[in-house]
Amino acid sequence: MSKPIVVKVGGSAGINYDFVCDDVAALVREGQRIVLVHGGSHELNLLSEKLGKPPRFLTSPQGFTSRYTDAETLDLFAMVYAGKMNTRIVERLQKRGVNAVGLSGLDGRLLEGPRKASVRAVIDGRQVLVRDDYTGRVEKVNRDLLSLLLEHGYTPVISPPACSTEGEAINVDGDRAAAMIAAALSADQLIILSNVPGLLRYFPDESTLIPELRYANLEQALGFAEGRMKKKVLGASEAIAGGVRQVVFGDARIERPILNAMQGRGTVIRA
Amino acid sequence: MSKPIVVKVGGSAGINYDFVCDDVAALVREGQRIVLVHGGSHELNLLSEKLGKPPRFLTSPQGFTSRYTDAETLDLFAMVYAGKMNTRIVERLQKRGVNAVGLSGLDGRLLEGPRKASVRAVIDGRQVLVRDDYTGRVEKVNRDLLSLLLEHGYTPVISPPACSTEGEAINVDGDRAAAMIAAALSADQLIILSNVPGLLRYFPDESTLIPELRYANLEQALGFAEGRMKKKVLGASEAIAGGVRQVVFGDARIERPILNAMQGRGTVIRA
Repeated sequence: MSKPIVVKVGGSAGINYDFVCDDVAALVREGQRIVLVHGGSHELNLLSEKLGKPPRFLTSPQGFTSRYTDAETLDLFAMVYAGKMNTRIVERLQKRGVNAVGLSGLDGRLLEGPRKASVRAVIDGRQVLVRDDYTGRVEKVNRDLLSLLLEHGYTPVISPPACSTEGEAINVDGDRAAAMIAAALSADQLIILSNVPGLLRYFPDESTLIPELRYANLEQALGFAEGRMKKKVLGASEAIAGGVRQVVFGDARIERPILNAMQGRGTVIRA
Repeated sequence: MSKPIVVKVGGSAGINYDFVCDDVAALVREGQRIVLVHGGSHELNLLSEKLGKPPRFLTSPQGFTSRYTDAETLDLFAMVYAGKMNTRIVERLQKRGVNAVGLSGLDGRLLEGPRKASVRAVIDGRQVLVRDDYTGRVEKVNRDLLSLLLEHGYTPVISPPACSTEGEAINVDGDRAAAMIAAALSADQLIILSNVPGLLRYFPDESTLIPELRYANLEQALGFAEGRMKKKVLGASEAIAGGVRQVVFGDARIERPILNAMQGRGTVIRA
Protein backbone atom coordinates (compact mmCIF):
# COMPACT_ATOMS: atom_id res chain seq x y z
CA MET A 1 0.00 0.00 0.00
CA SER A 2 1.25 3.49 -0.83
CA LYS A 3 1.79 5.94 1.99
CA PRO A 4 -1.27 8.18 2.26
CA ILE A 5 -1.14 11.83 1.37
CA VAL A 6 -3.22 14.42 3.17
CA VAL A 7 -4.90 17.09 1.08
CA LYS A 8 -6.38 20.16 2.71
CA VAL A 9 -8.69 22.23 0.55
CA GLY A 10 -9.70 25.61 1.88
CA GLY A 11 -13.12 27.15 2.13
CA SER A 12 -12.49 30.49 0.43
CA ALA A 13 -14.34 31.82 -2.59
CA GLY A 14 -12.97 30.73 -5.96
CA ILE A 15 -11.98 27.20 -5.03
CA ASN A 16 -13.03 24.63 -7.61
CA TYR A 17 -14.22 21.56 -5.71
CA ASP A 18 -15.03 19.73 -8.94
CA PHE A 19 -11.38 19.97 -10.01
CA VAL A 20 -10.26 18.81 -6.56
CA CYS A 21 -12.64 15.84 -6.60
CA ASP A 22 -11.76 14.92 -10.21
CA ASP A 23 -8.16 14.80 -9.10
CA VAL A 24 -8.85 12.78 -5.94
CA ALA A 25 -10.73 10.27 -8.11
CA ALA A 26 -7.90 10.04 -10.66
CA LEU A 27 -5.28 9.54 -7.95
CA VAL A 28 -7.34 7.02 -5.96
CA ARG A 29 -7.86 5.03 -9.18
CA GLU A 30 -4.06 4.87 -9.52
CA GLY A 31 -3.80 3.41 -6.03
CA GLN A 32 -2.94 6.58 -4.12
CA ARG A 33 -4.52 6.68 -0.68
CA ILE A 34 -5.83 10.13 0.20
CA VAL A 35 -7.27 11.80 3.25
CA LEU A 36 -9.14 14.96 2.28
CA VAL A 37 -9.62 17.76 4.81
CA HIS A 38 -11.78 20.73 3.91
CA GLY A 39 -12.85 24.15 5.10
CA GLY A 40 -16.00 26.17 4.60
CA SER A 41 -15.32 29.74 5.72
CA HIS A 42 -16.83 31.48 2.70
CA GLU A 43 -20.09 29.52 2.86
CA LEU A 44 -20.24 30.06 6.61
CA ASN A 45 -19.88 33.81 6.15
CA LEU A 46 -22.74 33.76 3.61
CA LEU A 47 -25.04 31.74 5.88
CA SER A 48 -24.19 33.86 8.92
CA GLU A 49 -25.08 37.02 6.98
CA LYS A 50 -28.33 35.51 5.70
CA LEU A 51 -29.38 34.51 9.20
CA GLY A 52 -28.65 37.98 10.56
CA LYS A 53 -25.63 36.96 12.59
CA PRO A 54 -22.70 38.42 10.62
CA PRO A 55 -19.35 36.75 11.28
CA ARG A 56 -16.98 38.28 13.80
CA PHE A 57 -13.27 37.67 13.94
CA LEU A 58 -10.85 37.94 16.82
CA THR A 59 -7.27 39.07 16.33
CA SER A 60 -4.70 37.77 18.78
CA PRO A 61 -1.91 39.99 20.10
CA GLN A 62 0.40 38.03 17.70
CA GLY A 63 -1.74 39.03 14.72
CA PHE A 64 -3.51 35.71 14.11
CA THR A 65 -7.20 35.98 13.32
CA SER A 66 -9.85 33.43 14.25
CA ARG A 67 -13.61 33.28 13.99
CA TYR A 68 -15.47 34.24 17.15
CA THR A 69 -17.42 31.04 17.78
CA ASP A 70 -20.13 31.21 20.40
CA ALA A 71 -22.62 28.32 20.76
CA GLU A 72 -24.92 29.70 18.06
CA THR A 73 -22.03 30.23 15.64
CA LEU A 74 -20.91 26.67 16.30
CA ASP A 75 -24.36 25.44 15.20
CA LEU A 76 -23.95 27.35 11.94
CA PHE A 77 -20.38 26.09 11.67
CA ALA A 78 -21.57 22.47 11.98
CA MET A 79 -24.31 23.13 9.42
CA VAL A 80 -21.90 24.43 6.82
CA TYR A 81 -18.75 22.38 7.43
CA ALA A 82 -20.06 18.99 8.61
CA GLY A 83 -23.40 19.48 6.83
CA LYS A 84 -23.51 21.10 3.41
CA MET A 85 -19.81 21.18 2.49
CA ASN A 86 -18.93 17.71 3.73
CA THR A 87 -22.05 16.10 2.27
CA ARG A 88 -21.59 17.74 -1.12
CA ILE A 89 -17.89 16.81 -1.30
CA VAL A 90 -18.67 13.20 -0.35
CA GLU A 91 -21.42 13.26 -3.01
CA ARG A 92 -18.99 14.56 -5.65
CA LEU A 93 -16.59 11.74 -4.79
CA GLN A 94 -19.29 9.05 -4.75
CA LYS A 95 -20.41 10.23 -8.20
CA ARG A 96 -16.81 9.76 -9.35
CA GLY A 97 -16.57 6.25 -7.94
CA VAL A 98 -14.60 7.11 -4.81
CA ASN A 99 -16.01 5.46 -1.69
CA ALA A 100 -15.75 8.53 0.51
CA VAL A 101 -16.72 8.68 4.19
CA GLY A 102 -17.32 12.09 5.74
CA LEU A 103 -16.25 12.71 9.32
CA SER A 104 -16.08 15.65 11.67
CA GLY A 105 -13.48 15.82 14.39
CA LEU A 106 -16.09 14.69 16.92
CA ASP A 107 -16.61 11.36 15.16
CA GLY A 108 -14.65 8.80 17.12
CA ARG A 109 -12.83 11.79 18.71
CA LEU A 110 -10.97 11.97 15.42
CA LEU A 111 -9.54 15.40 16.24
CA GLU A 112 -9.17 16.01 19.94
CA GLY A 113 -7.68 18.76 22.03
CA PRO A 114 -8.30 21.20 24.86
CA ARG A 115 -10.85 23.97 24.53
CA LYS A 116 -9.35 27.34 25.35
CA ALA A 117 -10.69 28.59 28.66
CA SER A 118 -10.49 32.10 27.25
CA VAL A 119 -9.14 33.77 24.14
CA ARG A 120 -7.00 36.88 24.30
CA ALA A 121 -7.96 39.30 21.56
CA VAL A 122 -7.23 42.85 20.56
CA ILE A 123 -10.34 44.96 20.07
CA ASP A 124 -9.94 48.67 19.30
CA GLY A 125 -6.31 48.48 20.40
CA ARG A 126 -7.18 47.04 23.82
CA GLN A 127 -6.56 43.48 24.94
CA VAL A 128 -9.71 41.68 26.12
CA LEU A 129 -10.46 38.14 27.29
CA VAL A 130 -13.27 36.36 25.42
CA ARG A 131 -14.78 33.53 27.45
CA ASP A 132 -17.77 32.16 25.53
CA ASP A 133 -15.67 31.09 22.56
CA TYR A 134 -15.75 27.42 21.55
CA THR A 135 -12.30 27.13 20.05
CA GLY A 136 -9.27 25.02 20.69
CA ARG A 137 -6.38 23.20 19.15
CA VAL A 138 -5.98 19.63 17.95
CA GLU A 139 -3.43 17.71 20.01
CA LYS A 140 -4.48 14.14 19.27
CA VAL A 141 -5.68 12.37 16.12
CA ASN A 142 -7.56 9.05 16.14
CA ARG A 143 -5.15 7.42 13.75
CA ASP A 144 -6.74 3.99 14.28
CA LEU A 145 -10.08 5.12 12.88
CA LEU A 146 -8.44 6.64 9.80
CA SER A 147 -6.28 3.55 9.22
CA LEU A 148 -9.33 1.30 9.62
CA LEU A 149 -11.18 3.24 6.93
CA LEU A 150 -8.20 3.52 4.58
CA GLU A 151 -7.42 -0.20 4.90
CA HIS A 152 -10.99 -1.02 3.92
CA GLY A 153 -10.90 1.12 0.80
CA TYR A 154 -12.65 4.21 2.11
CA THR A 155 -11.46 7.76 1.49
CA PRO A 156 -11.96 9.89 4.62
CA VAL A 157 -13.28 13.42 4.07
CA ILE A 158 -12.74 15.42 7.24
CA SER A 159 -13.75 18.82 8.55
CA PRO A 160 -13.85 20.65 11.84
CA PRO A 161 -15.40 21.00 14.41
CA ALA A 162 -13.06 19.00 16.62
CA CYS A 163 -13.77 17.38 19.98
CA SER A 164 -12.61 19.00 23.21
CA THR A 165 -11.18 16.85 25.97
CA GLU A 166 -14.60 17.13 27.64
CA GLY A 167 -16.38 16.05 24.45
CA GLU A 168 -17.58 19.48 23.34
CA ALA A 169 -17.64 20.58 19.72
CA ILE A 170 -14.92 23.18 19.17
CA ASN A 171 -13.77 25.24 16.23
CA VAL A 172 -10.18 24.49 15.30
CA ASP A 173 -8.03 25.69 12.45
CA GLY A 174 -8.39 23.35 9.48
CA ASP A 175 -4.84 23.77 8.18
CA ARG A 176 -3.27 22.91 11.49
CA ALA A 177 -5.74 20.03 11.95
CA ALA A 178 -4.63 18.70 8.54
CA ALA A 179 -1.01 19.00 9.68
CA MET A 180 -1.77 16.94 12.78
CA ILE A 181 -3.52 14.32 10.64
CA ALA A 182 -0.58 14.16 8.22
CA ALA A 183 1.86 13.73 11.12
CA ALA A 184 -0.33 11.09 12.80
CA LEU A 185 -0.53 9.06 9.59
CA SER A 186 3.18 9.55 8.79
CA ALA A 187 1.91 10.88 5.48
CA ASP A 188 4.38 11.34 2.69
CA GLN A 189 3.03 14.75 1.73
CA LEU A 190 0.66 17.39 2.99
CA ILE A 191 -0.89 19.42 0.18
CA ILE A 192 -2.59 22.64 1.27
CA LEU A 193 -4.78 24.04 -1.51
CA SER A 194 -6.35 27.49 -1.47
CA ASN A 195 -7.42 30.27 -3.81
CA VAL A 196 -3.89 31.55 -4.39
CA PRO A 197 -0.99 29.84 -6.20
CA GLY A 198 1.03 29.43 -3.00
CA LEU A 199 2.88 31.63 -0.56
CA LEU A 200 3.27 35.14 -1.97
CA ARG A 201 6.11 37.44 -0.96
CA TYR A 202 3.86 40.44 -1.57
CA PHE A 203 0.21 39.40 -1.28
CA PRO A 204 -1.87 39.57 -3.53
CA ASP A 205 0.73 39.87 -6.30
CA GLU A 206 0.79 36.34 -7.73
CA SER A 207 4.01 37.03 -9.61
CA THR A 208 5.78 37.08 -6.23
CA LEU A 209 5.11 33.38 -5.61
CA ILE A 210 7.82 31.77 -3.49
CA PRO A 211 8.56 28.40 -5.17
CA GLU A 212 10.60 26.88 -2.37
CA LEU A 213 10.97 27.45 1.29
CA ARG A 214 13.17 25.76 3.86
CA TYR A 215 11.77 24.62 7.14
CA ALA A 216 14.37 26.80 8.86
CA ASN A 217 12.93 29.88 7.15
CA LEU A 218 9.28 29.30 8.10
CA GLU A 219 9.51 31.60 11.09
CA GLN A 220 10.54 34.41 8.77
CA ALA A 221 7.71 33.51 6.34
CA LEU A 222 5.24 34.05 9.18
CA GLY A 223 6.23 37.68 9.02
CA PHE A 224 5.02 38.38 5.52
CA ALA A 225 2.32 35.70 5.11
CA GLU A 226 -1.04 37.46 4.87
CA GLY A 227 -4.04 36.67 7.08
CA ARG A 228 -5.19 33.14 6.37
CA MET A 229 -1.76 32.11 5.04
CA LYS A 230 -0.20 32.53 8.50
CA LYS A 231 -2.01 29.44 9.81
CA LYS A 232 -0.94 27.47 6.73
CA VAL A 233 2.69 28.35 7.43
CA LEU A 234 2.22 27.26 11.05
CA GLY A 235 0.58 24.05 9.83
CA ALA A 236 3.45 23.36 7.43
CA SER A 237 5.91 23.84 10.24
CA GLU A 238 4.00 21.48 12.53
CA ALA A 239 3.62 18.84 9.81
CA ILE A 240 7.34 18.77 9.05
CA ALA A 241 8.21 18.76 12.74
CA GLY A 242 5.85 15.77 12.94
CA GLY A 243 7.77 13.82 10.29
CA VAL A 244 5.96 14.67 7.04
CA ARG A 245 8.48 14.71 4.18
CA GLN A 246 7.06 17.59 2.18
CA VAL A 247 4.38 20.25 2.39
CA VAL A 248 3.13 22.06 -0.70
CA PHE A 249 0.89 25.14 -0.85
CA GLY A 250 -1.01 24.72 -4.12
CA ASP A 251 -3.73 26.36 -6.18
CA ALA A 252 -7.27 24.95 -5.85
CA ARG A 253 -8.58 26.93 -8.82
CA ILE A 254 -6.77 24.96 -11.53
CA GLU A 255 -7.33 21.51 -13.04
CA ARG A 256 -5.55 18.62 -11.36
CA PRO A 257 -4.65 20.82 -8.39
CA ILE A 258 -3.33 17.94 -6.29
CA LEU A 259 -1.15 16.40 -8.98
CA ASN A 260 0.24 19.83 -9.84
CA ALA A 261 1.15 20.43 -6.22
CA MET A 262 2.67 16.95 -5.88
CA GLN A 263 4.84 17.79 -8.88
CA GLY A 264 6.06 20.94 -7.23
CA ARG A 265 3.79 23.65 -8.60
CA GLY A 266 3.17 26.13 -5.79
CA THR A 267 5.32 26.63 -2.72
CA VAL A 268 7.27 23.54 -1.72
CA ILE A 269 8.49 23.21 1.85
CA ARG A 270 10.95 20.51 2.89
CA ALA A 271 12.67 19.66 6.14
CA MET B 1 -21.24 -9.68 21.59
CA SER B 2 -24.92 -8.85 21.98
CA LYS B 3 -27.06 -8.44 18.89
CA PRO B 4 -27.32 -4.75 18.07
CA ILE B 5 -30.53 -2.83 18.41
CA VAL B 6 -31.45 -0.01 16.09
CA VAL B 7 -32.99 3.10 17.62
CA LYS B 8 -34.64 5.70 15.43
CA VAL B 9 -35.35 9.04 17.07
CA GLY B 10 -37.55 11.44 15.15
CA GLY B 11 -37.00 15.08 14.40
CA SER B 12 -40.30 16.52 15.63
CA ALA B 13 -40.68 19.21 18.27
CA GLY B 14 -40.78 17.98 21.87
CA ILE B 15 -38.24 15.20 21.55
CA ASN B 16 -35.72 15.14 24.38
CA TYR B 17 -32.34 14.27 22.87
CA ASP B 18 -30.65 14.48 26.25
CA PHE B 19 -32.88 11.70 27.58
CA VAL B 20 -32.21 9.65 24.46
CA CYS B 21 -28.44 10.12 24.73
CA ASP B 22 -28.43 9.44 28.49
CA ASP B 23 -30.17 6.17 27.72
CA VAL B 24 -27.83 5.24 24.84
CA ALA B 25 -24.89 5.85 27.20
CA ALA B 26 -26.42 3.72 29.97
CA LEU B 27 -27.16 0.85 27.59
CA VAL B 28 -23.78 0.98 25.84
CA ARG B 29 -22.09 0.87 29.26
CA GLU B 30 -24.02 -2.35 29.94
CA GLY B 31 -22.64 -3.86 26.72
CA GLN B 32 -25.61 -3.23 24.45
CA ARG B 33 -24.56 -2.35 20.91
CA ILE B 34 -26.70 0.42 19.43
CA VAL B 35 -27.08 2.04 16.05
CA LEU B 36 -28.83 5.39 16.39
CA VAL B 37 -30.74 6.87 13.45
CA HIS B 38 -32.16 10.37 13.72
CA GLY B 39 -34.38 12.85 11.95
CA GLY B 40 -34.45 16.63 11.86
CA SER B 41 -37.73 17.74 10.30
CA HIS B 42 -38.65 20.36 12.89
CA GLU B 43 -35.23 22.06 12.74
CA LEU B 44 -35.31 21.91 8.96
CA ASN B 45 -38.70 23.62 8.90
CA LEU B 46 -37.37 26.38 11.15
CA LEU B 47 -34.23 26.94 9.05
CA SER B 48 -36.22 26.89 5.80
CA GLU B 49 -38.57 29.54 7.16
CA LYS B 50 -35.67 31.69 8.39
CA LEU B 51 -33.99 31.54 5.00
CA GLY B 52 -37.19 32.52 3.19
CA LYS B 53 -37.76 29.14 1.60
CA PRO B 54 -40.71 27.72 3.56
CA PRO B 55 -41.04 23.93 3.44
CA ARG B 56 -43.40 22.36 0.94
CA PHE B 57 -44.85 18.88 1.19
CA LEU B 58 -46.10 16.56 -1.50
CA THR B 59 -49.02 14.19 -0.89
CA SER B 60 -49.07 10.98 -2.88
CA PRO B 61 -52.33 9.57 -4.28
CA GLN B 62 -52.10 6.98 -1.43
CA GLY B 63 -52.04 9.75 1.16
CA PHE B 64 -48.36 9.61 2.13
CA THR B 65 -46.70 12.98 2.56
CA SER B 66 -43.07 13.77 1.80
CA ARG B 67 -40.96 16.90 1.76
CA TYR B 68 -40.51 18.51 -1.64
CA THR B 69 -36.71 18.39 -1.94
CA ASP B 70 -35.19 20.38 -4.80
CA ALA B 71 -31.41 20.93 -4.91
CA GLU B 72 -31.57 23.98 -2.65
CA THR B 73 -33.75 22.17 -0.10
CA LEU B 74 -31.29 19.29 -0.13
CA ASP B 75 -28.51 21.72 0.84
CA LEU B 76 -30.61 22.85 3.82
CA PHE B 77 -31.46 19.22 4.56
CA ALA B 78 -27.76 18.31 4.70
CA MET B 79 -27.07 21.35 6.89
CA VAL B 80 -29.66 20.37 9.47
CA TYR B 81 -29.56 16.56 9.43
CA ALA B 82 -25.91 15.74 8.66
CA GLY B 83 -24.71 19.08 10.06
CA LYS B 84 -26.26 20.51 13.18
CA MET B 85 -28.39 17.57 14.38
CA ASN B 86 -25.83 14.85 13.75
CA THR B 87 -22.93 16.86 15.17
CA ARG B 88 -24.84 17.84 18.31
CA ILE B 89 -26.04 14.26 18.93
CA VAL B 90 -22.50 12.91 18.48
CA GLU B 91 -21.31 15.65 20.84
CA ARG B 92 -23.92 14.67 23.46
CA LEU B 93 -22.75 11.06 23.22
CA GLN B 94 -19.03 11.93 23.37
CA LYS B 95 -19.72 14.01 26.49
CA ARG B 96 -21.33 10.91 27.99
CA GLY B 97 -18.37 8.66 27.16
CA VAL B 98 -19.89 6.98 24.09
CA ASN B 99 -17.51 6.86 21.15
CA ALA B 100 -20.05 7.90 18.52
CA VAL B 101 -19.36 8.25 14.80
CA GLY B 102 -21.79 10.28 12.73
CA LEU B 103 -22.59 9.17 9.19
CA SER B 104 -24.96 10.20 6.46
CA GLY B 105 -26.26 7.68 3.97
CA LEU B 106 -23.71 8.94 1.43
CA ASP B 107 -20.77 7.91 3.61
CA GLY B 108 -19.51 4.65 2.21
CA ARG B 109 -22.85 4.44 0.36
CA LEU B 110 -24.25 3.44 3.73
CA LEU B 111 -27.85 3.89 2.55
CA GLU B 112 -28.26 3.33 -1.17
CA GLY B 113 -31.20 3.18 -3.52
CA PRO B 114 -32.68 4.56 -6.72
CA ARG B 115 -33.68 8.19 -7.00
CA LYS B 116 -37.26 8.52 -8.19
CA ALA B 117 -37.32 9.83 -11.76
CA SER B 118 -40.50 11.67 -10.86
CA VAL B 119 -42.89 11.86 -7.95
CA ARG B 120 -46.64 11.63 -8.38
CA ALA B 121 -48.40 14.11 -6.12
CA VAL B 122 -51.88 15.45 -5.60
CA ILE B 123 -52.04 19.25 -5.69
CA ASP B 124 -55.43 20.96 -5.45
CA GLY B 125 -57.13 17.65 -6.20
CA ARG B 126 -55.17 17.09 -9.42
CA GLN B 127 -52.38 14.56 -9.96
CA VAL B 128 -49.12 16.12 -11.12
CA LEU B 129 -45.62 14.78 -11.81
CA VAL B 130 -42.79 16.50 -9.94
CA ARG B 131 -39.43 16.01 -11.66
CA ASP B 132 -36.84 18.11 -9.78
CA ASP B 133 -37.30 16.23 -6.54
CA TYR B 134 -34.25 14.54 -5.01
CA THR B 135 -35.95 11.71 -3.19
CA GLY B 136 -35.74 7.97 -3.27
CA ARG B 137 -35.87 4.83 -1.22
CA VAL B 138 -33.17 2.81 0.53
CA GLU B 139 -32.74 -0.64 -1.01
CA LYS B 140 -29.23 -1.48 0.16
CA VAL B 141 -27.35 -0.93 3.41
CA ASN B 142 -23.55 -1.05 3.74
CA ARG B 143 -23.66 -3.57 6.53
CA ASP B 144 -19.88 -4.09 6.37
CA LEU B 145 -19.17 -0.48 7.31
CA LEU B 146 -21.57 -0.63 10.27
CA SER B 147 -20.16 -3.95 11.46
CA LEU B 148 -16.61 -2.60 11.15
CA LEU B 149 -17.48 0.36 13.37
CA LEU B 150 -19.50 -1.67 15.89
CA GLU B 151 -16.75 -4.29 16.19
CA HIS B 152 -14.24 -1.56 16.97
CA GLY B 153 -16.36 -0.07 19.75
CA TYR B 154 -17.92 2.81 17.85
CA THR B 155 -21.60 3.74 18.04
CA PRO B 156 -22.87 4.80 14.60
CA VAL B 157 -25.20 7.82 14.51
CA ILE B 158 -26.91 7.93 11.14
CA SER B 159 -29.13 10.34 9.27
CA PRO B 160 -30.36 10.88 5.72
CA PRO B 161 -29.60 11.98 3.02
CA ALA B 162 -28.99 8.65 1.33
CA CYS B 163 -26.95 7.92 -1.80
CA SER B 164 -28.67 7.31 -5.13
CA THR B 165 -27.38 4.57 -7.41
CA GLU B 166 -25.66 7.35 -9.38
CA GLY B 167 -24.08 8.78 -6.23
CA GLU B 168 -26.43 11.72 -5.74
CA ALA B 169 -27.62 12.88 -2.34
CA ILE B 170 -31.30 12.01 -1.95
CA ASN B 171 -33.88 12.54 0.74
CA VAL B 172 -35.24 9.26 2.07
CA ASP B 173 -37.63 8.50 4.87
CA GLY B 174 -35.71 8.02 8.12
CA ASP B 175 -38.06 5.45 9.63
CA ARG B 176 -37.90 3.20 6.63
CA ALA B 177 -34.12 3.70 6.40
CA ALA B 178 -33.88 2.61 10.05
CA ALA B 179 -35.96 -0.47 9.19
CA MET B 180 -33.57 -1.37 6.37
CA ILE B 181 -30.60 -0.92 8.74
CA ALA B 182 -32.23 -3.13 11.37
CA ALA B 183 -32.93 -5.83 8.78
CA ALA B 184 -29.39 -5.61 7.32
CA LEU B 185 -27.84 -6.01 10.78
CA SER B 186 -30.30 -8.76 11.80
CA ALA B 187 -31.02 -6.50 14.75
CA ASP B 188 -32.95 -7.94 17.64
CA GLN B 189 -35.17 -4.90 17.98
CA LEU B 190 -36.03 -1.72 16.15
CA ILE B 191 -37.16 1.06 18.50
CA ILE B 192 -38.88 4.00 16.80
CA LEU B 193 -39.12 6.98 19.15
CA SER B 194 -41.19 10.09 18.47
CA ASN B 195 -43.16 12.77 20.28
CA VAL B 196 -46.18 10.53 20.94
CA PRO B 197 -46.41 7.49 23.23
CA GLY B 198 -46.87 5.10 20.31
CA LEU B 199 -49.52 4.31 17.71
CA LEU B 200 -52.79 6.00 18.63
CA ARG B 201 -56.16 4.65 17.50
CA TYR B 202 -57.53 8.20 17.47
CA PHE B 203 -54.69 10.69 17.05
CA PRO B 204 -53.90 12.86 19.06
CA ASP B 205 -55.80 11.25 21.97
CA GLU B 206 -52.97 9.58 23.91
CA SER B 207 -55.43 7.51 25.92
CA THR B 208 -56.12 5.54 22.74
CA LEU B 209 -52.59 4.08 22.63
CA ILE B 210 -52.50 0.65 21.00
CA PRO B 211 -50.17 -1.44 23.22
CA GLU B 212 -49.77 -4.38 20.86
CA LEU B 213 -50.14 -4.95 17.19
CA ARG B 214 -49.68 -8.05 15.08
CA TYR B 215 -47.68 -7.96 11.91
CA ALA B 216 -50.80 -9.26 10.11
CA ASN B 217 -52.74 -6.19 11.22
CA LEU B 218 -50.25 -3.57 10.08
CA GLU B 219 -52.07 -3.02 6.80
CA GLN B 220 -55.17 -2.07 8.76
CA ALA B 221 -53.11 0.20 11.04
CA LEU B 222 -52.00 2.15 7.97
CA GLY B 223 -55.65 3.19 7.65
CA PHE B 224 -55.85 5.11 10.91
CA ALA B 225 -52.19 6.06 11.46
CA GLU B 226 -51.90 9.84 11.17
CA GLY B 227 -49.46 11.63 8.85
CA ARG B 228 -45.93 10.86 9.96
CA MET B 229 -46.99 7.67 11.75
CA LYS B 230 -47.89 6.03 8.42
CA LYS B 231 -44.22 5.76 7.43
CA LYS B 232 -43.38 4.30 10.83
CA VAL B 233 -46.00 1.60 10.32
CA LEU B 234 -44.53 0.88 6.88
CA GLY B 235 -41.05 0.77 8.41
CA ALA B 236 -42.20 -1.64 11.12
CA SER B 237 -43.69 -3.87 8.50
CA GLU B 238 -40.49 -3.84 6.42
CA ALA B 239 -38.28 -4.48 9.45
CA ILE B 240 -40.28 -7.53 10.53
CA ALA B 241 -40.44 -8.82 6.97
CA GLY B 242 -36.63 -8.42 7.02
CA GLY B 243 -36.23 -10.64 10.08
CA VAL B 244 -36.24 -8.19 13.00
CA ARG B 245 -37.83 -9.87 16.01
CA GLN B 246 -39.68 -6.90 17.45
CA VAL B 247 -40.48 -3.29 16.63
CA VAL B 248 -41.60 -0.84 19.31
CA PHE B 249 -43.01 2.66 18.82
CA GLY B 250 -41.93 4.53 21.93
CA ASP B 251 -42.02 7.98 23.49
CA ALA B 252 -38.92 10.18 23.08
CA ARG B 253 -40.13 12.76 25.61
CA ILE B 254 -39.65 10.63 28.71
CA GLU B 255 -36.58 9.54 30.68
CA ARG B 256 -34.96 6.28 29.58
CA PRO B 257 -37.04 6.23 26.41
CA ILE B 258 -35.15 3.29 24.88
CA LEU B 259 -35.23 1.07 27.96
CA ASN B 260 -38.93 1.82 28.40
CA ALA B 261 -39.63 0.81 24.80
CA MET B 262 -37.46 -2.33 25.12
CA GLN B 263 -39.56 -3.26 28.13
CA GLY B 264 -42.76 -2.92 26.15
CA ARG B 265 -43.93 0.61 26.91
CA GLY B 266 -45.46 1.99 23.73
CA THR B 267 -46.79 -0.01 20.80
CA VAL B 268 -45.13 -3.42 20.43
CA ILE B 269 -45.21 -5.15 17.07
CA ARG B 270 -44.14 -8.78 16.65
CA ALA B 271 -44.07 -11.14 13.71
